[in-house]
Amino acid sequence: MKSIERGYIQVYTGDGKGKTTAALGLALRAAGAGFNVFIGQFLKAKTSSEYKALSRFKDLITIKAYGRKGLLKEVSPIDIKLARDGLEDSKRAILSNKYKLVILDEASVAVHLNLFPIEALLEVVLIKPPPLELVITGRYAHRRLIEIADLVTEMKEIKHYYKKGITGRRGIEY
Amino acid sequence: MKSIERGYIQVYTGDGKGKTTAALGLALRAAGAGFNVFIGQFLKAKTSSEYKALSRFKDLITIKAYGRKGLLKEVSPIDIKLARDGLEDSKRAILSNKYKLVILDEASVAVHLNLFPIEALLEVVLIKPPPLELVITGRYAHRRLIEIADLVTEMKEIKHYYKKGITGRRGIEY
Repeated sequence: MKSIERGYIQVYTGDGKGKTTAALGLALRAAGAGFNVFIGQFLKAKTSSEYKALSRFKDLITIKAYGRKGLLKEVSPIDIKLARDGLEDSKRAILSNKYKLVILDEASVAVHLNLFPIEALLEVVLIKPPPLELVITGRYAHRRLIEIADLVTEMKEIKHYYKKGITGRRGIEY
Repeated sequence: MKSIERGYIQVYTGDGKGKTTAALGLALRAAGAGFNVFIGQFLKAKTSSEYKALSRFKDLITIKAYGRKGLLKEVSPIDIKLARDGLEDSKRAILSNKYKLVILDEASVAVHLNLFPIEALLEVVLIKPPPLELVITGRYAHRRLIEIADLVTEMKEIKHYYKKGITGRRGIEY
């Protein structure tokens, strides 16, 4: 008899490039195995190239954005509301038992910017049903999130062309 | 007038999880922007979930595998031939001007295992046409590769459930 496979809590953090893309790659792989995937993106608007690409997986991957377009310069009540509603939405997705993989993209940054407290994120993480794989990305992962995670990878910047004055490029950075 | 956008050399290395998935995420994003992508996977066979997922992008993403099924325990002449043929194949892809993004997945491990020398990899990297974005993944990235790269991220393992005795799971690790 095949036992129900346990799902884990994966955290991708650090200042290097590759956190969101690693989560997207996981989503792709899971979809390839026929699993349903939910992606909630904090602090981002639904405008990036990944949305266009993922539209080919509408049957398996649901992606939602809980942020506004452009760089966040100063946190406003709108940003807080968007992020908190997003966390509630993600919670429903986690509890729906519909998904094998749930990704909370940039949720660690949302905590860092005080859009919601770490306790609110931990509550959502800890209600995860055992078979669900949960992935949390973003710089500044909170110590308490790292403590409860099963896997933590720090993406460490060794070299970055941003330092040469290059800005984000469509299809590469967004 | 829009100038030709320069492409960069990106390296993902380190002992943490997320190198290949970050490259897959980049492929997805690039395809979302309508770019053609080539992925050459060293030391891997064409059996993983990502192949199934990427079959939905046959118009944009070409993926090839230059390895054998199962874990490599001891390097044989077959592995060397597969890897070297793979490097030649990747070189043709790079020079074809067909692709905006080329990924040499696990190429750093192929060098580490002496499937081909670092000089052979560097030669292929350095012939890259200026607009092409080139991504090289794998642990043990060679010092000389890091030197010529524009972006290097080290995926650092902070915690890993493999240490709890969990082995790779379909749709998550492969």
